[in-house]
Amino acid sequence: MSELAHLGPVELFTPRFDASLAFFVDILGMDVVEQIGPSTYLRGWGDYQPWSVKLTASETSGMGVLGLRAWSVEALERRVAAVEATGLGLGWTDGDLGRGASYRFTDPDGHVFELYYECDRYVAPEGLRPAHKNVPGRYTGRGCAIKRLDHINLLAADVRANREFCVEQLDYRLYERIELNDGSEAGAWMSATIAAHELIYTRDAHGASGRLHHVALWVDTREECLRAADIWVDAGIEIEAAPSKHAIAQGFFLYGIEPGGNRVEVTTGGRFVYAPDEPVVVWTEAERAKGQAWGVKTVESFHTYGTPPVE
Amino acid sequence: MSELAHLGPVELFTPRFDASLAFFVDILGMDVVEQIGPSTYLRGWGDYQPWSVKLTASETSGMGVLGLRAWSVEALERRVAAVEATGLGLGWTDGDLGRGASYRFTDPDGHVFELYYECDRYVAPEGLRPAHKNVPGRYTGRGCAIKRLDHINLLAADVRANREFCVEQLDYRLYERIELNDGSEAGAWMSATIAAHELIYTRDAHGASGRLHHVALWVDTREECLRAADIWVDAGIEIEAAPSKHAIAQGFFLYGIEPGGNRVEVTTGGRFVYAPDEPVVVWTEAERAKGQAWGVKTVESFHTYGTPPVE
Amino acid sequence: MSELAHLGPVELFTPRFDASLAFFVDILGMDVVEQIGPSTYLRGWGDYQPWSVKLTASETSGMGVLGLRAWSVEALERRVAAVEATGLGLGWTDGDLGRGASYRFTDPDGHVFELYYECDRYVAPEGLRPAHKNVPGRYTGRGCAIKRLDHINLLAADVRANREFCVEQLDYRLYERIELNDGSEAGAWMSATIAAHELIYTRDAHGASGRLHHVALWVDTREECLRAADIWVDAGIEIEAAPSKHAIAQGFFLYGIEPGGNRVEVTTGGRFVYAPDEPVVVWTEAERAKGQAWGVKTVESFHTYGTPPVE
Amino acid sequence: MSELAHLGPVELFTPRFDASLAFFVDILGMDVVEQIGPSTYLRGWGDYQPWSVKLTASETSGMGVLGLRAWSVEALERRVAAVEATGLGLGWTDGDLGRGASYRFTDPDGHVFELYYECDRYVAPEGLRPAHKNVPGRYTGRGCAIKRLDHINLLAADVRANREFCVEQLDYRLYERIELNDGSEAGAWMSATIAAHELIYTRDAHGASGRLHHVALWVDTREECLRAADIWVDAGIEIEAAPSKHAIAQGFFLYGIEPGGNRVEVTTGGRFVYAPDEPVVVWTEAERAKGQAWGVKTVESFHTYGTPPVE
Repeated sequence: MSELAHLGPVELFTPRFDASLAFFVDILGMDVVEQIGPSTYLRGWGDYQPWSVKLTASETSGMGVLGLRAWSVEALERRVAAVEATGLGLGWTDGDLGRGASYRFTDPDGHVFELYYECDRYVAPEGLRPAHKNVPGRYTGRGCAIKRLDHINLLAADVRANREFCVEQLDYRLYERIELNDGSEAGAWMSATIAAHELIYTRDAHGASGRLHHVALWVDTREECLRAADIWVDAGIEIEAAPSKHAIAQGFFLYGIEPGGNRVEVTTGGRFVYAPDEPVVVWTEAERAKGQAWGVKTVESFHTYGTPPVE
Repeated sequence: MSELAHLGPVELFTPRFDASLAFFVDILGMDVVEQIGPSTYLRGWGDYQPWSVKLTASETSGMGVLGLRAWSVEALERRVAAVEATGLGLGWTDGDLGRGASYRFTDPDGHVFELYYECDRYVAPEGLRPAHKNVPGRYTGRGCAIKRLDHINLLAADVRANREFCVEQLDYRLYERIELNDGSEAGAWMSATIAAHELIYTRDAHGASGRLHHVALWVDTREECLRAADIWVDAGIEIEAAPSKHAIAQGFFLYGIEPGGNRVEVTTGGRFVYAPDEPVVVWTEAERAKGQAWGVKTVESFHTYGTPPVE
Repeated sequence: MSELAHLGPVELFTPRFDASLAFFVDILGMDVVEQIGPSTYLRGWGDYQPWSVKLTASETSGMGVLGLRAWSVEALERRVAAVEATGLGLGWTDGDLGRGASYRFTDPDGHVFELYYECDRYVAPEGLRPAHKNVPGRYTGRGCAIKRLDHINLLAADVRANREFCVEQLDYRLYERIELNDGSEAGAWMSATIAAHELIYTRDAHGASGRLHHVALWVDTREECLRAADIWVDAGIEIEAAPSKHAIAQGFFLYGIEPGGNRVEVTTGGRFVYAPDEPVVVWTEAERAKGQAWGVKTVESFHTYGTPPVE
Repeated sequence: MSELAHLGPVELFTPRFDASLAFFVDILGMDVVEQIGPSTYLRGWGDYQPWSVKLTASETSGMGVLGLRAWSVEALERRVAAVEATGLGLGWTDGDLGRGASYRFTDPDGHVFELYYECDRYVAPEGLRPAHKNVPGRYTGRGCAIKRLDHINLLAADVRANREFCVEQLDYRLYERIELNDGSEAGAWMSATIAAHELIYTRDAHGASGRLHHVALWVDTREECLRAADIWVDAGIEIEAAPSKHAIAQGFFLYGIEPGGNRVEVTTGGRFVYAPDEPVVVWTEAERAKGQAWGVKTVESFHTYGTPPVE
């Protein structure tokens, strides 16, 4: 029972806007909702909000603003107060497209967030209306047919500090973390729901700040991750990690780099955490070294690459 | 943000205990945890509690006690107070195997529930320990390889009264319901989490009370529902509804009747409800008549059959 | 070891050409290869020939010419001689787009076939080249992402006569058939390969001649059949039979009617027949009445509807 | 149109008989058919013959006799004559359990084969009878639920010599091969049917003779390969290569080492070769270095390990 409803929408910067947009639309299969200034607003067919990813032309790559929806007006007020007390608050904005007053702040590592409660619901236009009234949008099956934004993995110089901020100020639940032999924290997996992860921090190998590890987009089945790999290979998209299953959180993955340089995951599965008193799973350095669920070794770039690039 | 964590465990009565037990163990692939008196305690490999289904030899079929775990000690106290005020309370028990003090009550239709908070976590014995520490039990793949208890569908003479009780006294969230042309309620789908349903009420065509429509057991993929159908067919298990997709809640299903007479579903999928202000989806009589998601007509027995049988 | 290599390409007539073409391209995900006169030539990404389906604007629906590729020049000559001896030969043609001399004839029921050996291989144009050299075309994942033409089901007033013609003159292997209580034959499943069926005859309930039951298009997984159903439902395509598994041949299916009226199947699976002396499986009337593999009753229209419509 | 019907059954030697048998029965889910002397005869639920794998207690690991079924009595005679002419014939035997006169010979590398035509069909005993008459055995879903033997990969000091022997003397069709920069052949993929491979030779890095690379067992879906990996991980079976897709032949794989030391693959998918004049796909050294279909690098042991171990 977190005071947060869920994570998102998210803004991504890209120095190769046209190529990135083509990737999100033609390859990932997301729909364009609106174009405002340097930004295109995109959605998956199953996002209940009007958009979940905002692609913004920029000089470099990385994450812009990450939205977090509070559970209620009261929850929003409590979370804002908690953040304000840390001195990391930046103040209220009018909110991005389709949402109300939003409270902007940064985490200790410098990533920009906006907390909000009020927002529009997506209303499918004629031609994109689905057959069933409990589904937001039409399933056309284009490309990877992304359903919705799922989770975000941020890099941080100090994982523990950011994780503690998220648990204490934002009311995230901590499900799993990696503790190295020296006692430092290499990763933390948090969620506002029973889904195994919504917000992840892993260590920035370069000690830089405010960087993105990856944005993860959801499909409903492992078979859709496998066919996404086929689509990527034939389209010349660079696969960083072929479809397999994570040990941590048990999610199924496909990782690659979109034309703008940001790492993107197509994901599904993952464990559900129904217990209110679920103990935090702590992975040791030795356990992490065993690789993923089926023994696949994690590619080296996964531990070092993030966006924007470090100088 | 419900004050309930989740539904379960559940007790099922069977007049053909040996055959029912063989079905749950050999065909569904659940593991025997303990045998106490006329009851065998069973679990799926992914249940975090020591057991999720209790099979009890009885003169007839149907559901015994349905557990509901509260989110916290305080939430338990508040829910108990709310139930007590309705006069439907039956008082505290010591709780079933592996759980603490439990508050017994009935819903307006007469089904027996127990609210509790304290409970044991499953500790896998040598030989059933899984490879990964964030998974409760070993995946051996026997039969349908049920992962865990998912949801329960109860029959009620008056769906609306029971639904209101669950929302108001138990703090369930209502996601979908069916309203017939005469204004009466034919079904209600409720959940304590983002999962599309955990507790369902549908109308008892016989106007009987306290009956069970079905117990639903989870597998992670649609392919596992399909192979469950192959297993059932070859084992001579009666398939009531072959694998397909529900319109309501969007879950994937396989329905059949276990040897003791109770309807069992193997299920996966279903939509996630992330919006805290998700509007309740109301299905009309005409919409329900269209059948399931891909147009499959609902079998007639689905509207009439429940356990125990009516005289 | 049949003297035939495989069935196809096939020509389909449609009285609603534009709508049919949109269905094959946008919904089924086939690619347009060429447009000649009233016909558009289409292909799946995995067809090794340049095209597998030819859509021809016409006054009514139904099948045009069905190609059959012989295993070799010599096999072609032997099959032509065998057909000629029956008096059903129509003589040599120059062949359709991309194939050499073709021998035209009809089966006893009046369907038009062309036997050929010489044909072009597909060479993917820039922009549709796949990543791997053992795959004919690029997997873009559009719509149902049909891989290739799989099999054809023809209607015939006299199934047995047509089946005997196919086995004796064309060298088809007979794998399964239905024999009704009166000794008549209601269906016959034949193949030139280990695949469970390539050419099927079932009884024309109207006693008409030369009609089509359905054309079946292949995808590699059952999950792709399931997602095809989602795509069809949202696109307003009429589903005649939702995804399930056939008892005969064990194939997985989704049936619907394309805008021009022809029945189309999205199919996968099916048994492989490796034994050279495999006994023919004969299904009785009672067995057929049990429905499909998981007990789904065959829809009535499946036994009566074909194209072109009967007057 | 090969004169061979298919490959198999196969005999495997194991120095750890009990552990190997437990692996094949409990983990792979094959059924024991018979126990004769040091050998246990096993089958998948979909094998049409009474058995497909014979496990023989031995001092070391590796392959015993590999059966090849001819298409007909006449085809058998022609193949025997062709083999005899090479001087590699060993003469006729009475055949193994359930098959008739068999002609024993070796390939140039020294692997032992038996060509035969006459053989029994499997008749399921009471309790293992499937629901449908076109399926050989009951699908119980135990462990990986292997359906049937699929293909065999042998190691050879001289791949080209063995491939030429198989094509010329045995009438195999060659579909794909690897040619290194020095002109030597590193691998050859052959089949008697439209299935992409039944018999494979790859280079023995140790220059040893008569060794086995792996035996591949079939399941019908990629999801079953994925769940096989879960079963193996939890059972402590060593995964050599986690589930992914081959570039060559396009098959889906999971590789591991059974307790006796032999490499076993759980496989599905793979392309179908319908063209009678399909050109042989020749992969270069550079192309092979790119790894598998989705870029996964082939593990080093895959190029070096075989059974029996070299001294």
